[in-house]
Amino acid sequence: MASNSSRGSSERHRIAQHRLSVIAGHLQRPLNGDTTIRATECKAQGTRPDVATEMKTVPRRRQEIMKWNGWGYNDSKFIYNKNGQAEFTGKRYRLSGMIIPGLRDWMESTFGATVQHKTPATPVLNTSAVQPPTLNEAFVEGIKSTGIPFSHDPEDRVFRSHGHCLHEIFPLREGKVGRVPDMVVWPKCHNDVVKTVELACKHNVCLIPFGGGTSVSSALECPPEETRSIVSLDTSQMNRVLWIDEKNLTAHVEAGIIGQDLERLLNESGYCTGHEPDSMEFSSLGGWVATRASGMKKNIYGNIEDLVVHIKMVTPRGVIEKSCQGPRMSTGPDVHHFILGSEGTLGVVTEVTMKIRPVPEYQKYGSVVFPNFEQGVACLREVARQRCAPASIRLMDNEQFQFGHALKPQVSSIFTSFLDGLKKFYITKFKGFDPSRLCVATLLFEGDREKVLQHEKQVYDIAAKFGGLAAGEDNGQRGYMLTFVIAYLRDLGMDYFVIGESFETSVPWDRVLDICRNVKARIVQECKDRGVQFQPLSTCRVTQTYDAGACVYFYFAFNYRGLSDPLHVYAQVEHAAREEILANGGSLSHHHGVGKLRKEWMRETVSDVGLGMLKSVKDYVDPNNIFGNRNLL
Amino acid sequence: MASNSSRGSSERHRIAQHRLSVIAGHLQRPLNGDTTIRATECKAQGTRPDVATEMKTVPRRRQEIMKWNGWGYNDSKFIYNKNGQAEFTGKRYRLSGMIIPGLRDWMESTFGATVQHKTPATPVLNTSAVQPPTLNEAFVEGIKSTGIPFSHDPEDRVFRSHGHCLHEIFPLREGKVGRVPDMVVWPKCHNDVVKTVELACKHNVCLIPFGGGTSVSSALECPPEETRSIVSLDTSQMNRVLWIDEKNLTAHVEAGIIGQDLERLLNESGYCTGHEPDSMEFSSLGGWVATRASGMKKNIYGNIEDLVVHIKMVTPRGVIEKSCQGPRMSTGPDVHHFILGSEGTLGVVTEVTMKIRPVPEYQKYGSVVFPNFEQGVACLREVARQRCAPASIRLMDNEQFQFGHALKPQVSSIFTSFLDGLKKFYITKFKGFDPSRLCVATLLFEGDREKVLQHEKQVYDIAAKFGGLAAGEDNGQRGYMLTFVIAYLRDLGMDYFVIGESFETSVPWDRVLDICRNVKARIVQECKDRGVQFQPLSTCRVTQTYDAGACVYFYFAFNYRGLSDPLHVYAQVEHAAREEILANGGSLSHHHGVGKLRKEWMRETVSDVGLGMLKSVKDYVDPNNIFGNRNLL
Repeated sequence: MASNSSRGSSERHRIAQHRLSVIAGHLQRPLNGDTTIRATECKAQGTRPDVATEMKTVPRRRQEIMKWNGWGYNDSKFIYNKNGQAEFTGKRYRLSGMIIPGLRDWMESTFGATVQHKTPATPVLNTSAVQPPTLNEAFVEGIKSTGIPFSHDPEDRVFRSHGHCLHEIFPLREGKVGRVPDMVVWPKCHNDVVKTVELACKHNVCLIPFGGGTSVSSALECPPEETRSIVSLDTSQMNRVLWIDEKNLTAHVEAGIIGQDLERLLNESGYCTGHEPDSMEFSSLGGWVATRASGMKKNIYGNIEDLVVHIKMVTPRGVIEKSCQGPRMSTGPDVHHFILGSEGTLGVVTEVTMKIRPVPEYQKYGSVVFPNFEQGVACLREVARQRCAPASIRLMDNEQFQFGHALKPQVSSIFTSFLDGLKKFYITKFKGFDPSRLCVATLLFEGDREKVLQHEKQVYDIAAKFGGLAAGEDNGQRGYMLTFVIAYLRDLGMDYFVIGESFETSVPWDRVLDICRNVKARIVQECKDRGVQFQPLSTCRVTQTYDAGACVYFYFAFNYRGLSDPLHVYAQVEHAAREEILANGGSLSHHHGVGKLRKEWMRETVSDVGLGMLKSVKDYVDPNNIFGNRNLL
Repeated sequence: MASNSSRGSSERHRIAQHRLSVIAGHLQRPLNGDTTIRATECKAQGTRPDVATEMKTVPRRRQEIMKWNGWGYNDSKFIYNKNGQAEFTGKRYRLSGMIIPGLRDWMESTFGATVQHKTPATPVLNTSAVQPPTLNEAFVEGIKSTGIPFSHDPEDRVFRSHGHCLHEIFPLREGKVGRVPDMVVWPKCHNDVVKTVELACKHNVCLIPFGGGTSVSSALECPPEETRSIVSLDTSQMNRVLWIDEKNLTAHVEAGIIGQDLERLLNESGYCTGHEPDSMEFSSLGGWVATRASGMKKNIYGNIEDLVVHIKMVTPRGVIEKSCQGPRMSTGPDVHHFILGSEGTLGVVTEVTMKIRPVPEYQKYGSVVFPNFEQGVACLREVARQRCAPASIRLMDNEQFQFGHALKPQVSSIFTSFLDGLKKFYITKFKGFDPSRLCVATLLFEGDREKVLQHEKQVYDIAAKFGGLAAGEDNGQRGYMLTFVIAYLRDLGMDYFVIGESFETSVPWDRVLDICRNVKARIVQECKDRGVQFQPLSTCRVTQTYDAGACVYFYFAFNYRGLSDPLHVYAQVEHAAREEILANGGSLSHHHGVGKLRKEWMRETVSDVGLGMLKSVKDYVDPNNIFGNRNLL
């Protein structure tokens, strides 16, 4: 590995020298006045030294601010306060510190989950439940000599032993700890990663890259059969914006940067990537590349594959990167697409050049009420057909509409609840919408103010053709705000016998209604067949639109009281739901990825030959399975 | 291979059966009224049996309508008529049958090429110059038993032995024939291709897929070192539109279809793909996939990677295809991107599902004159920054503006020439544009009439900020029309000692001016250094805009009179031009691809590890190098 890397790097040096001599050739022999090379105007301007300021959402010891066995920040959680009302603690969110009067009743009526039946989590990790680390002494010595920070602390190791699948969080709540990494390292830059990978190859250590830790595909689970030392390569301290290029509207960023930090840093210069996955508070650029992430506003900014201009990844074979930052090329199969979606099986993404855009001048939320889901889907399909989708447009089904209501914070003003009541009367009694069938689309427009208002009119006009009624900005804004607190709700559920998960797919337009109906029905049937005592929550929304189809996002949760093995029941129902999705023409995943959770379907997804291609790349790049998370293949 | 294929196909059968049983499960146990599966509404509607009508631009014996040693149709060529005027023959084009009064003088003044100095082509192929075929008898017998049409005819074989690089056409004009395929086969459908590939694997025959034959990267050249029988797998008779899905706006098409036929067939149903590469009269869908093609109107319709929803390719290992037609997925690295750009090295693309759009209501051309190239580039950059590019926007330099003038057909009306003169006066004298510095952008808008007019205003307003002056629809329309006749001009040049080629790159915005200036200057210098007696034509245009850069297209041609080895001189200058492009931050290719012509730069383009990945895929998919065109690697 070391010799590959230095040969690779001296080769790149030779090529760079050659190029400089080509350009210098012009300077030596000026041809005529017009062709004087003005080299200075070619340099990336607008590089602000201050944007290299480190700005860490995520400290090395993440458990200082983040939950070790649940979602998100320690200080933010749903609880029932001493008055028995649901409340969201902390200060970080719009909802923080507020009472949510409807939530408790909703939990009871939806799940049969009452406050009497508690299943609290183990509050503190019992570190003696954590296996002592299997250390590879030579590797440890090697790391020490590099100066790269590391840890064998059981809390650090447990934190990085999992993502956020139900079957990963549930045991942690019970204080159960499975296979965890033996060591954590925190490289600070590309070269640190090169050294770490070289050492891992030399001493045969299993490396698992760890970015935001938000995987929901079991991608981060440590393979229990792994006998070598497992090292978690935590990228969070490798998180600088290295340069901003205002001429080309690109930024070069270290891959450990977290979504919220990236946007915040770029905003300071008046830019953004616009990439806003629901996990953006915690997920990392490297993770997005590894999983083919999708963001809420992809209609404007594109998905991750549209956003990246250049990627650098460290592999056991050496560093892979293209030599050019051109916008689009035909130079054989696109090697960026060997990296995108590789889910940590080939190497560590260290640096990425991303497209940036000026922060939009104007932003406007909106919402539309439809008489039923079918009309809503037809409207979204028409919006896609006319290629006039807003930055974001999402259609939730009736259950999610009810759920959204349950999450309304206590309003301080009588006037606002009067208004709400008036709206409700108008929509249900006056317009004749059936509250058990209506559904809501939330919208977000952004851009030049004038264009936004034009665009908005066009979309609402289409909505009207499908019986849609504009229902105001507030409902839209609340819908998007809730996105970031939904994940905290599962922890509340799990305090009261309720377990659940989200899963998603992409599907051609003409299959959307069937998939929504069939998958929700299948979930209900499977729960019944497996002895679940309470009606499950089985709900969906259309969360992205494309020319040729849509992304559909499901929530599934149930009260497991009375079941002896709830995780097993859950897994079986989820498995059946995925079979149902595939049978109805949906994909294995739109953006969550495959991980270990969905490996079994990979062969039928990409065909034998496709799977063989992926394996041949893996076998070439990482013959000793150093990147041994066992994802995908 | 046979066992792989039938195992693959019985596996797919099993999976399909499984899925049907999943869906049928719903029918057996109706859950409630709401969830009755209405299966019929899921079928692709709007499948018109008549669109499966075969419509062949390209007959099996292509030489019946196409030139065997030049570009395009036999009946269409530039000549000097008996009055010594340039004329374009035939009836197929807008320009056909017209006198082009300025062309002869332009040829003389630009190249020093006079009608006295002729280098006519050999009019007819001397079939005895063609090596007898090296036949693989077992393969031939196998093909005979399948009923797939085939030929050993020397004319058929020569036709498929080359693309349209200068170094391929020039020797043909001299009657020289190198290594050619030994046999041509014409499969008519996917299953024919499966049989052909199976036979090739079984009997170790080299297969070279042949679509439109328009390659300009030496991709189609037969490797002279190939000792096995070379079989040209001509896809042109596998060219049906299998279905149109109006619900999802997709069409499923056989990969041998030619661009003009595809659009014509879809237009009959009111649709289009909108994919219009300059080669579309002759190039094929399979070729576009294999080379990562780009179309003129990619700003609306996308490049080929944006257009494809599903691809089926036959390889020595079996058929590769995804199981889902979802719009966007995260299921590991995207195997479509292992196929796109594989340039015939992995297999034969047989069927593709492409996105289609309704034929736009309205189309409007336009043009803008800029005082100089720098202002024009700055304008295009601003249009890209505002993300308001028309369907097409191209900026040509001053030389191409002059050239465009030279190609004006004789106008029948005194009034039109008066108008032209008036425009010229206005632009040069009144507005003060210097005719030796001004340059022109051509534009095409399409869509809803109202939106087009708004869009047009926005673009012209931006142009005005950069000193641009609207110069009318005619100039725009002519610019695009000329696109299809330019390729014929090289044949005229070659009749009079002039040789030339186009080549292209993609490059970040801040490198565009330098690349244009440096590459053109380098070409001039290299010609001088190598003894070219006449000033070369060295010209460029910015032909596509992207967020992070542009595509730049160069023309390079010179009069080789007095040179003993013109092809060698040409190759050296082109090589130097590519080095100059790379040194200035341009890519190896935006859309022409790599072929054999640019292989030497692949390692530095994608890095050692990237190249190794591509090789590992090739070695897995085609271990015996059946697809032995030697492209890319």
